[in-house]
Amino acid sequence: MTVARPDEVRRYNRASLLRLLHTGGPATRAALAAELGLNRSTIKMLVDGLAGDGVVEEKVPRLAQGAGRPSLLVLPQPQAVVVLAVDVQVEHAAIALVGLGGQILGRNSWNLRGRRREPEEVVCHVAESAAFLAQDLGLRPVAAGVSVPGIVRRSDGMVHGAANLAWLDVPLGQRMGTALGVPVAVGNDAELGALAEFVRGAGRGASDAVFVSADVGVGGGIIAQGALLRGSAGYLGEIGHMTVHPGGRRCHCGNVGCWETEVGEAALRRALGLVDDAPRGAIVAELRELRRDSDPVARLGDYVDWLVLGLVNVVNVFGPELVVLGDLFTALPDAVVRRARREVHERSMVSRALGGVRIEKSALGADLKLLGAAEAAFGDVLATV
Amino acid sequence: MTVARPDEVRRYNRASLLRLLHTGGPATRAALAAELGLNRSTIKMLVDGLAGDGVVEEKVPRLAQGAGRPSLLVLPQPQAVVVLAVDVQVEHAAIALVGLGGQILGRNSWNLRGRRREPEEVVCHVAESAAFLAQDLGLRPVAAGVSVPGIVRRSDGMVHGAANLAWLDVPLGQRMGTALGVPVAVGNDAELGALAEFVRGAGRGASDAVFVSADVGVGGGIIAQGALLRGSAGYLGEIGHMTVHPGGRRCHCGNVGCWETEVGEAALRRALGLVDDAPRGAIVAELRELRRDSDPVARLGDYVDWLVLGLVNVVNVFGPELVVLGDLFTALPDAVVRRARREVHERSMVSRALGGVRIEKSALGADLKLLGAAEAAFGDVLATV
Repeated sequence: MTVARPDEVRRYNRASLLRLLHTGGPATRAALAAELGLNRSTIKMLVDGLAGDGVVEEKVPRLAQGAGRPSLLVLPQPQAVVVLAVDVQVEHAAIALVGLGGQILGRNSWNLRGRRREPEEVVCHVAESAAFLAQDLGLRPVAAGVSVPGIVRRSDGMVHGAANLAWLDVPLGQRMGTALGVPVAVGNDAELGALAEFVRGAGRGASDAVFVSADVGVGGGIIAQGALLRGSAGYLGEIGHMTVHPGGRRCHCGNVGCWETEVGEAALRRALGLVDDAPRGAIVAELRELRRDSDPVARLGDYVDWLVLGLVNVVNVFGPELVVLGDLFTALPDAVVRRARREVHERSMVSRALGGVRIEKSALGADLKLLGAAEAAFGDVLATV
Repeated sequence: MTVARPDEVRRYNRASLLRLLHTGGPATRAALAAELGLNRSTIKMLVDGLAGDGVVEEKVPRLAQGAGRPSLLVLPQPQAVVVLAVDVQVEHAAIALVGLGGQILGRNSWNLRGRRREPEEVVCHVAESAAFLAQDLGLRPVAAGVSVPGIVRRSDGMVHGAANLAWLDVPLGQRMGTALGVPVAVGNDAELGALAEFVRGAGRGASDAVFVSADVGVGGGIIAQGALLRGSAGYLGEIGHMTVHPGGRRCHCGNVGCWETEVGEAALRRALGLVDDAPRGAIVAELRELRRDSDPVARLGDYVDWLVLGLVNVVNVFGPELVVLGDLFTALPDAVVRRARREVHERSMVSRALGGVRIEKSALGADLKLLGAAEAAFGDVLATV
């Protein structure tokens, strides 16, 4: 804080109000005033300004309670601010146009096999597909967010390594920016999953939470003190590459015994007795079948032990109030999650100190990373609307 | 940022200037103006105010360079703001009065054995010793910071567990506050070590750093995005309790194979072939001896492997630019640190992505935790001087 000029204050307050509507949804002026600590006349001025620009609309709520004039609801207008969300996974890519408030307004997806997985092809296909979609819907995205399963430098979207895609040092942020013609934010998929959980999912309102997801690889995103944690130079740490099994399997990262090698997709295949190239759908189907088993924990054998061991580490190292399990982990039988909860609490001194750590499955489903990518794109946009 | 009133702005700027002098030492008005982004007349007003209150002094530098009138140096006055720093370790306790700028103005220490290690006795002895010291020096501390090797709730200084002290659920912040009659901040020793390194040591200016120290236990403190990371409810995570050796030794925390069991004090004794109750001095002497050995890495055997494994995890999980090794780790032969540097880089994908992570020994010596405790105390004080 240095001396703040009135127009800076107004801009700041406008952005804060917009962010509140974006993440919290429709609200009355009174609720907005209370939440932002601003007086009613300032709120009126800001809402009038945003309504005049078509960014919000004011409406009588459908179910007005009590007597007297009902308080008007301020609604964010999804079409007023639209961003492009891109989710590049190992087997497929998806794009979506996401409006103010987080609503998905349209989407498209395609398989990534062979040559179509190369960075040039992915960028080209994303740009083409996004242009069609925008034209179809008559919308113009003002920024883009891209989720990638790799180590990403935040500042410029350089993908240092995405081993499961066989990408190495790809300047994805720059290439996407050139192809799309809008500002692009690139993020690690687990990091953006954490962001989505934090803004729209189980982590909403949490001050300290860890999001752990299993796909081909295993990754994590950390909310610390109410903000997304980032490593040096914007590289997020890689929770999946904690060594948990010295002398264990060799990992593609070059190290041995990484958590990913014990609880990632390949480990799930082994635990379920599936063949090495069984597709993801078969894994999910098998896990669904397992729910009817009398003892699914026993059926998964070692897998559950490694899951618990890594979760104990996550809880001991970060001291979160909440751990959210994403992607393939969400297909695990509830009995496995219950076992993990109990064992983590018993074995983690930090969990005991905290009086317990919540361990929940993500409820955002397959759109998780698209929603996270959208939030990364909205990050800088809302301040300038 | 909401609307800032002129007196709030002045108070904020005064605190910022004081913090800069406290951490950066004496500086010219011109340097302060440049650093804080304030104009010269504002700086003059602030410095004059602080000088009038006896908090700073202005002096002609001893070696004025070039022609013309030399620029006056603004010096913080150590005696103007004094805090009490308390370092409770397993074998001994120390207190110090620390002045503005971080100078230790006086100190005292004593052994903790038997009954003297009980919380009531420690609090009582600290209060008594602090009163004597303050009287001797004619100083009056305005706040206190306490370092404890345990899990500490930041908000009120509740020590949930300090297993190596055999403390459980001790309301240390409250007791110390009552005994000392000043505000008290209690922190985990590794966390406060990290704070000291960040403000005055190897981590100065680092945006993302991890401090790892080995005493009886092994702990860590994390600087993320230029601020000390804290877990939920103020509990910091416990890096020493990452499981690195499934099926390994039982740890006092109730889990098995914690990093602490492989690289803490007891593990060093085993690696050096010392008896179980060999005192810390013997360990340090033996490590000093080891520096003359032709191959100290080989002499320490497995110990170095476990050290490297844990450091790989720390680097992969947090993605820091710098790792600082503290306490007993500083006594390790340089050859061991060089080996750790090389192996961590080879085995950590995050280190490779970052183009390398610096791994350094702490240079703050035995005063590290006292200095960290002092900074915890100064934290809230400088805004109100």
